[in-house]
Amino acid sequence: MEGSPEHRPVHRETRFDADVTRYAARAKGMVASEIRALFSVANRPEVVSLAGGSPNISGLPLDVVGSLLSELVVEHGAVAMQYSPAQGDPRLREQITEVMAEVGIDANPDDVVVTVGSQQALDLVTRIFCDPGDTVVCEAPSYVGALGVFAAYQCDVVHVEMDGEGLVPEHLDNALTTLAAQGRRVKLLYTIPSYHNPMGVSLSLDRRQRVLEICHRHDVLVVEDDPYGLLGFEGEPYRALRADDPARVVYLGSFSKTFAPGFRVGWALAPHAIRDKLVLAQESATLCPPTFSQYAVATYLANHDWKGQIKSFREMYRERRDAMLESLADLMPATTTWTTPRGGFFVWVTLPEGIDAKAMSPRAVTSRVAYVPGTAFYADGFGSQNMRLSYCLPPPDRIREGVRRLAAVVERELELRETFGPVRGGRDGGIEFPGPEVR
Amino acid sequence: MEGSPEHRPVHRETRFDADVTRYAARAKGMVASEIRALFSVANRPEVVSLAGGSPNISGLPLDVVGSLLSELVVEHGAVAMQYSPAQGDPRLREQITEVMAEVGIDANPDDVVVTVGSQQALDLVTRIFCDPGDTVVCEAPSYVGALGVFAAYQCDVVHVEMDGEGLVPEHLDNALTTLAAQGRRVKLLYTIPSYHNPMGVSLSLDRRQRVLEICHRHDVLVVEDDPYGLLGFEGEPYRALRADDPARVVYLGSFSKTFAPGFRVGWALAPHAIRDKLVLAQESATLCPPTFSQYAVATYLANHDWKGQIKSFREMYRERRDAMLESLADLMPATTTWTTPRGGFFVWVTLPEGIDAKAMSPRAVTSRVAYVPGTAFYADGFGSQNMRLSYCLPPPDRIREGVRRLAAVVERELELRETFGPVRGGRDGGIEFPGPEVR
Repeated sequence: MEGSPEHRPVHRETRFDADVTRYAARAKGMVASEIRALFSVANRPEVVSLAGGSPNISGLPLDVVGSLLSELVVEHGAVAMQYSPAQGDPRLREQITEVMAEVGIDANPDDVVVTVGSQQALDLVTRIFCDPGDTVVCEAPSYVGALGVFAAYQCDVVHVEMDGEGLVPEHLDNALTTLAAQGRRVKLLYTIPSYHNPMGVSLSLDRRQRVLEICHRHDVLVVEDDPYGLLGFEGEPYRALRADDPARVVYLGSFSKTFAPGFRVGWALAPHAIRDKLVLAQESATLCPPTFSQYAVATYLANHDWKGQIKSFREMYRERRDAMLESLADLMPATTTWTTPRGGFFVWVTLPEGIDAKAMSPRAVTSRVAYVPGTAFYADGFGSQNMRLSYCLPPPDRIREGVRRLAAVVERELELRETFGPVRGGRDGGIEFPGPEVR
Repeated sequence: MEGSPEHRPVHRETRFDADVTRYAARAKGMVASEIRALFSVANRPEVVSLAGGSPNISGLPLDVVGSLLSELVVEHGAVAMQYSPAQGDPRLREQITEVMAEVGIDANPDDVVVTVGSQQALDLVTRIFCDPGDTVVCEAPSYVGALGVFAAYQCDVVHVEMDGEGLVPEHLDNALTTLAAQGRRVKLLYTIPSYHNPMGVSLSLDRRQRVLEICHRHDVLVVEDDPYGLLGFEGEPYRALRADDPARVVYLGSFSKTFAPGFRVGWALAPHAIRDKLVLAQESATLCPPTFSQYAVATYLANHDWKGQIKSFREMYRERRDAMLESLADLMPATTTWTTPRGGFFVWVTLPEGIDAKAMSPRAVTSRVAYVPGTAFYADGFGSQNMRLSYCLPPPDRIREGVRRLAAVVERELELRETFGPVRGGRDGGIEFPGPEVR
């Protein structure tokens, strides 16, 4: 080491007097949610977590993947471990168009941009479109990670109501009309039409056409987030919005739920001009998405029956969905309601009037069951009477045990309510960052 | 597929009438550089490219890496292919502190945030600190990828002069004083103290202390980018700025040049409060950096003599540096000057008066040699008399051949200048995105 020994630091102290005025305005809202602490407890083995959104990848053939990757390194390591084009590997982009064909999309590989998970695709789309104060229309509720992105880019989020068939077109039309009358610039509609996170519902086929027509009429760009599109339990996958309006829709896809999330490979399919901006944004954000991950996914797709693997994922998740729906029906107090997902990972529960899911959350964890309070999925503090239950990770008997514990907690809350009146937690103003366990 | 067949699109047309007012203000400057087209030609095998900044990883033991990764998947695949904490894998963060010990840093793994290459570390640091219009002080010249980030966040870049010993402290002090007097808010000093990209020079030990003192006095946060710190050719590595001022410096590191870039694993070491914001920013940008890449790097570090590998990288790059310096001395016109790097990948050449490196660039490619014009490394159009030559990728005899071709091109330019007077290319206003070949 050059430099004299007396320069060695005497302590490891790195506290920096965080002068908040030094941070960018966008960073001021970046604060960890209180429920983070709760989740660290929820990860203990004795707690049944119905909170997480991580896929169950235990069914993957690890021996096959292991030898494919070993071959990849030995035969193509010098390329697979090198920098690569910011837009993504051409071979993988071609394969991605084959995946999208499953949801009816006829795409050109030139219009695909590979990203670090579809989360980064949303980050880059927001980066190129949204100035601070721009409005983004989202479903009510919406994906917590998307709300985090919109908060980071200082967007105003306007929620539009959903029902059991997804986003309600009339509400969307009204909201866009009202926003236009207010002079607010709506840059994006962010939507998860198939197997919604957190609501579990899907946009009906009839509504898909109406949503496109409304967005066309109001000249709003649609961001279609479709991580669960191939994980339906009944019949064929839904046809993507993008399939019917290539010029109006940016489609976001991901291998996180159909293969494995740890490679962080997602993508955006976008009209040419937008694609060009996305590539430049990707270059400035990361130089290029991980080359090795891209080659790993491409090798897996080329050498393994990925469609068969998705089929077995579907069966596994359907069994778990059934376990959850059956135990909810068997055990929950009669005044509790929930959605019936036809695919994906999540059930959205509405608790009896006067019960606050966030306030109840620590008591649930004490009873060794965890969920995500509904408020996490709203930018405006709504959702206190809701919770998201996920059935993706625990096996069916654990799901039943979790719902049994949860039902008991709700019963006790109802008794408390009878005795003391409604319990209400604090309502938050901003977006919560609940931690990586929640997806 | 649900949805009737008449919904199938009749064309793959995805042109979107790119209404520029629809984009965010930050996206308006995102335009591809003209030299991109040039680089696609420069990648042809008959052209000697002294333009790229990709490391030469052909020396890596691919069989060893291949079997390590195969083992990793088979034994730990369910974890290595899953989501992981946004801050990065704890084991890798511990190993990263061992790497940083090589440049004199005594760090706590809790203060490390893993990123998608150090490029993303810079993106996230800028994201949390810089509002549009904030000033960032950079060296003159500076890393093209950093200028791209600052442009994407709409920062004003002020360049401060360097000489053969790196950033000139007096100029830095003057610049910060002037900016303060103008009421401009300086958020960051961005610097590459060791084996600078593109200049090849290193900040002397004496100046390191003075730069820290000046930044302390002006209360400016230092971003120390150190991708080449372990790739010095003489004696021990330089002591990092961060080693002597843990509370003032955010240190950025990378495995791209000491192992392989294709995993995209870099990191930021930051004071606690900043670290917390970086983790939240990472979560919103990608949910988590690629788990598999992190496990791959951790496995490599734990099971391979990584220090020995770096030693052999150093020797390989030194031989190439020598080939370049010798052939420059032998062949270049006497009025050309250049820096003498003691490590890293780059030589910075100053052409004879009146010769424009950018204007000359197409003629060089015609003569089958490529370089990066100096203007790419300035936010303000300076650098037209300079070029960056890289010696990292071509073998020594190709380097000599490349310099021979280049010297002939410069000679011809000199003859043209004698006949017609100085040749000047257009001066660009903004940042260039020259493409992923340039690092």
